[in-house]
Amino acid sequence: MGNSFGHLFRITTWGESHGGGVGVVVDGCPPRLALTEADIQPDLDRRRPGQSRIVTPRKESDTIQILSGTFRGKTLGTPICLWVRNEDARPEAYEEMASKFRPSHADFTYHAKYGIRNWEGGGRASARETVGRVAAGAIARKILRERFGIEILACVTQIQNLKTPVDPETVRFRDIESNLVRCPSQEMASKLIRLIERTRRAGDSLGGIVTGIARGVPPGWGEPVFDRLEADLAKAMLSLPAAKGFDIGSGFAGITMTGRQHNDLFRARRGKVITITNRSGGIQGGISNGQTIYFQVAFKPVATVMHEQQTVDDRYRNTTLKGRGRHDPCVLPRAVPIVEAMTALVLVDHALRHKAQCQ
Amino acid sequence: MGNSFGHLFRITTWGESHGGGVGVVVDGCPPRLALTEADIQPDLDRRRPGQSRIVTPRKESDTIQILSGTFRGKTLGTPICLWVRNEDARPEAYEEMASKFRPSHADFTYHAKYGIRNWEGGGRASARETVGRVAAGAIARKILRERFGIEILACVTQIQNLKTPVDPETVRFRDIESNLVRCPSQEMASKLIRLIERTRRAGDSLGGIVTGIARGVPPGWGEPVFDRLEADLAKAMLSLPAAKGFDIGSGFAGITMTGRQHNDLFRARRGKVITITNRSGGIQGGISNGQTIYFQVAFKPVATVMHEQQTVDDRYRNTTLKGRGRHDPCVLPRAVPIVEAMTALVLVDHALRHKAQCQ
Amino acid sequence: MGNSFGHLFRITTWGESHGGGVGVVVDGCPPRLALTEADIQPDLDRRRPGQSRIVTPRKESDTIQILSGTFRGKTLGTPICLWVRNEDARPEAYEEMASKFRPSHADFTYHAKYGIRNWEGGGRASARETVGRVAAGAIARKILRERFGIEILACVTQIQNLKTPVDPETVRFRDIESNLVRCPSQEMASKLIRLIERTRRAGDSLGGIVTGIARGVPPGWGEPVFDRLEADLAKAMLSLPAAKGFDIGSGFAGITMTGRQHNDLFRARRGKVITITNRSGGIQGGISNGQTIYFQVAFKPVATVMHEQQTVDDRYRNTTLKGRGRHDPCVLPRAVPIVEAMTALVLVDHALRHKAQCQ
Amino acid sequence: MGNSFGHLFRITTWGESHGGGVGVVVDGCPPRLALTEADIQPDLDRRRPGQSRIVTPRKESDTIQILSGTFRGKTLGTPICLWVRNEDARPEAYEEMASKFRPSHADFTYHAKYGIRNWEGGGRASARETVGRVAAGAIARKILRERFGIEILACVTQIQNLKTPVDPETVRFRDIESNLVRCPSQEMASKLIRLIERTRRAGDSLGGIVTGIARGVPPGWGEPVFDRLEADLAKAMLSLPAAKGFDIGSGFAGITMTGRQHNDLFRARRGKVITITNRSGGIQGGISNGQTIYFQVAFKPVATVMHEQQTVDDRYRNTTLKGRGRHDPCVLPRAVPIVEAMTALVLVDHALRHKAQCQ
Repeated sequence: MGNSFGHLFRITTWGESHGGGVGVVVDGCPPRLALTEADIQPDLDRRRPGQSRIVTPRKESDTIQILSGTFRGKTLGTPICLWVRNEDARPEAYEEMASKFRPSHADFTYHAKYGIRNWEGGGRASARETVGRVAAGAIARKILRERFGIEILACVTQIQNLKTPVDPETVRFRDIESNLVRCPSQEMASKLIRLIERTRRAGDSLGGIVTGIARGVPPGWGEPVFDRLEADLAKAMLSLPAAKGFDIGSGFAGITMTGRQHNDLFRARRGKVITITNRSGGIQGGISNGQTIYFQVAFKPVATVMHEQQTVDDRYRNTTLKGRGRHDPCVLPRAVPIVEAMTALVLVDHALRHKAQCQ
Repeated sequence: MGNSFGHLFRITTWGESHGGGVGVVVDGCPPRLALTEADIQPDLDRRRPGQSRIVTPRKESDTIQILSGTFRGKTLGTPICLWVRNEDARPEAYEEMASKFRPSHADFTYHAKYGIRNWEGGGRASARETVGRVAAGAIARKILRERFGIEILACVTQIQNLKTPVDPETVRFRDIESNLVRCPSQEMASKLIRLIERTRRAGDSLGGIVTGIARGVPPGWGEPVFDRLEADLAKAMLSLPAAKGFDIGSGFAGITMTGRQHNDLFRARRGKVITITNRSGGIQGGISNGQTIYFQVAFKPVATVMHEQQTVDDRYRNTTLKGRGRHDPCVLPRAVPIVEAMTALVLVDHALRHKAQCQ
Repeated sequence: MGNSFGHLFRITTWGESHGGGVGVVVDGCPPRLALTEADIQPDLDRRRPGQSRIVTPRKESDTIQILSGTFRGKTLGTPICLWVRNEDARPEAYEEMASKFRPSHADFTYHAKYGIRNWEGGGRASARETVGRVAAGAIARKILRERFGIEILACVTQIQNLKTPVDPETVRFRDIESNLVRCPSQEMASKLIRLIERTRRAGDSLGGIVTGIARGVPPGWGEPVFDRLEADLAKAMLSLPAAKGFDIGSGFAGITMTGRQHNDLFRARRGKVITITNRSGGIQGGISNGQTIYFQVAFKPVATVMHEQQTVDDRYRNTTLKGRGRHDPCVLPRAVPIVEAMTALVLVDHALRHKAQCQ
Repeated sequence: MGNSFGHLFRITTWGESHGGGVGVVVDGCPPRLALTEADIQPDLDRRRPGQSRIVTPRKESDTIQILSGTFRGKTLGTPICLWVRNEDARPEAYEEMASKFRPSHADFTYHAKYGIRNWEGGGRASARETVGRVAAGAIARKILRERFGIEILACVTQIQNLKTPVDPETVRFRDIESNLVRCPSQEMASKLIRLIERTRRAGDSLGGIVTGIARGVPPGWGEPVFDRLEADLAKAMLSLPAAKGFDIGSGFAGITMTGRQHNDLFRARRGKVITITNRSGGIQGGISNGQTIYFQVAFKPVATVMHEQQTVDDRYRNTTLKGRGRHDPCVLPRAVPIVEAMTALVLVDHALRHKAQCQ
């Protein structure tokens, strides 16, 4: 249970890091949308691990296949099944994990819940599961872009203690993508790359913040009182591996202001209602107000470190375990397309829900 | 749409701040649970506004009525409809709001979405809607307490710049409830009360942090990959009026640590698996690990201030509006039972889901 | 669980035959629909028992109250809670049922499932639960009529062995409502009334068929492969107390034809596609084709008879039980507005779903 | 939308008759169930068309592949993705259907709904979609058999005017499977085979009835008031291609009885409650009563006939169309494993729901 997301644009992801592959079924995609693998592959390539000098290489091409739901390059309105075959299976690399629980990973909790787990590479709890999210998110982004003119971006704005401000109104995709860490400031990017390299050599790992942005969302999306837009964004983000926090607009920082300082005053401008400031982050009372939506997602430092650590085995005996093999000390850059995908999935679902009831 | 929460213990809240009342339908409550109004009223009384010298009085008794789902003091397993009648309706107090949008309230977005709104007191966006949540949450807490031995607590840990640490393992309900602001530190409580009084006199308002705690949750609850326990908690909390942020365990603060510092090492203790530290906040990979669950919710400063502010009216013309009438400059103390309620609702739903699939 | 119906126009009914009342919450109703109690009461009056000489009188006014979701006579887009207070509670009339299971009623199965039941008048399994359905259905019908020009009808076409044909294209509401049994043929109506009176005097009961009709449904509604329009109608009808069968179009009778005889041939007429015959009953492949939708619902004879019958008690000992008190030997006429309501609820939900994805 | 079925054991089917294949994702399967392709393939083989002399051969092996959700032969509790590759794609056979709507098929309605359709072999409306249902149903049956001792059967009991009685209590799987038409009476089977052969030679087609049976379901399954067990069965059956009717227990035939004749009297037997007759079909008030569940599904005659028929094209002009290629004049025998699958899917979902709330 729990592997579906969305109400009207509903995705169900499936697959483990080792096995027949990973994928997603999208139910509810509007018909007659032009769609081929070429619309999806670029986002998957951005998500793919092992592509730069700051991480250990991984030999998977992550090639997407559309198994259903399109006909001659257009969506049919029927379920779209997307599949990426697993290629890089090396079960022998994981033998020790068959019986030992990696600290701060999901090995123990999956064992406790299901009484069984695919210990080859993390199974379902592996970041590889997000392949299906990114693939479905690429479709969602295409709809939002083509039918609503909405632009979705994400970028790395903090790693450990190094942080950079970002202006949600002006930051550009090409600036973000122009460096290995997907940081909008090129100067900060250089620092972050050095920090990651240093940490990698130390066999240690890092966490940080990804900022998500959606520009052009019209007023009116969001379904109070539970399916508030920010509530669904929060759920989407906290459903990501290693995510530990979410805030929107002024967020945690806003609590030091008083109401007079914090309120976003309305003004009329060219027949539209705008706000002078945007501490609300584009959402008020759970519904978009037409301003730019922006939020932060906190990711904890990667749990896999190249050092021996205390832990227990599946017979509940004390032991130790040392990370080995690939080491990806900071997943933040790769989390960027995943945050974008989840943002798009939330928004397109709410676009359809709003249309159904209110238009 | 969007007024239901939960899958198996499913609540649907209804009602506006003005009208026939507010309430909730609970579908999926286990049968044969002893339940009368007396089990629910205390939590509603804790949520009720206007009860202390730090807020403007409000004359509503918020008396709960069970309309269905019980028989001779026991639940039937059928839907439980709970109702609190509205008493304090003073529409005339709101006439100006009929055409003007209060800044940082949901007036404009409801207008943009629905093309109509109940402008008497905020309608559905009013904090009064949470009556239904607290009432349903009282049932959820009872189940968790009686059938699983789980204790749920919340407390105010920060208002504006004044913050207090809290130990999730040891903080006690009676300490929290022993002061007007529901702060576990009595010393800090005095400071917070003075801050609130001062802010109230200034006609201004405050935000802060409520910390939520669940002790005794067994390992195994949570439904990856989307209905992770922390994802559902995040959604629950961000669905609250004025909530702008959520983090769990080490949260936003944890990102300055490295993986070696941050990892929670497992140890075996008396046939159980425990962690030496609890930076995970009791959840790993979306599933409870048996440690105490704790998280923070950031609430922005209250939008209603007793000052004239720029805004627009419903014909999209610039104007001004001044808050009047009741003034509740800090909702944090009242948010405590609401956070508890939402926590209980998430947990009891996951208890049933886990039982269905895995037990 | 199981007390909600619909996805986008979603209703949740609550209430037992004895207790605080019965009602429904409607979530997803479009905003700005004119709606007062006067739009709902007439259908409830048609459903109300005890109104004619063919049944035992029952003293309930079934007065509907709108508790939420409207403002000055218009819907807000927020949940609409509708409530009918119970008036005719006479628990003493049911004492014997506290321990004995009435044959072919739900007493035993509720006991087996929940381990507790409200034995006063059938509790949740009572036909009184349908009050909420009819109330919500009245809103659905109003939307379908005003926004789509759809007319929904139902009528009694068979009781025991007496059956009358009905032409779904031409039958009129006023003809159906012009007799006590809601039979479109006045001649047959007289026979049915005599049959019911005779059966009532014999302390026995009757079953029969209600035919449901929807005229004016546009092509394109229905969500294959599971939420086919006929599948949702079948579920809606089989969710009614005492319903034992459903067929659509040619239904069970159609199986004696060959494909050549049975196929509905398409023809173009004034720029539209019509079918020469309508054995499909207006639905093909789960989607409406623009022709009139018609179907049959079989209701078993009423389980309550005024004779002593063998049964068991809740300690699983053999005993006997004799029906007493009110006797309503044939619920078919009252089932008519309920079938209409469920039809409307299915259709309005599909109207919204179709709009969301395909328009 | 509409491609998922079930709440806790939830399936989502995907795929068209032509394209990358057909499949299903099962979310909610209990962990640690032994499961390999060998558990699923036999039911798929029973569903596969073109296997006997009474139908046109079709060259598809329908080989199932488990893509996810198992590890070393056991289920993980994670989503199980099952896939059958399409092999027999001959788009050229369908060129004429690109622009013409086959009478009583779903061509027109899919066109009307989605504005696009995969006209190669019926696309999503093809019976091939049921591959995913049968595959998921095989898992459901295994759970029901191994964990609850429940046996599910279906058989052909009527084709056109030829009908045979069946005793739900005693009919055996091997008797049903011992003839080409899956009829429990061998004598009737011979007649049916001759009827089908004669009809096939005439280029015409047949409909009939499949009876579904579930033995050993314990009392207590079913979720009133909407998710009654019979309501979910009705929906499941009416979601099948060509299904036009459903009745349970005495069904449509029962309406000619009076209540005294029809009521199932309870008796205590060895500490259990049984009924002397079983006109209820094993379900009372929406909840199983421990007796055998049995029901009928009416299938209309196959729409494809080998004769020229009037129709329209996608520019809404009158034209004609003649069926060609494969001719399968009676799908009833192949519908048997599909009815079994849907029955199993309904029951296992209710088993989990009952456990969640009431156990």
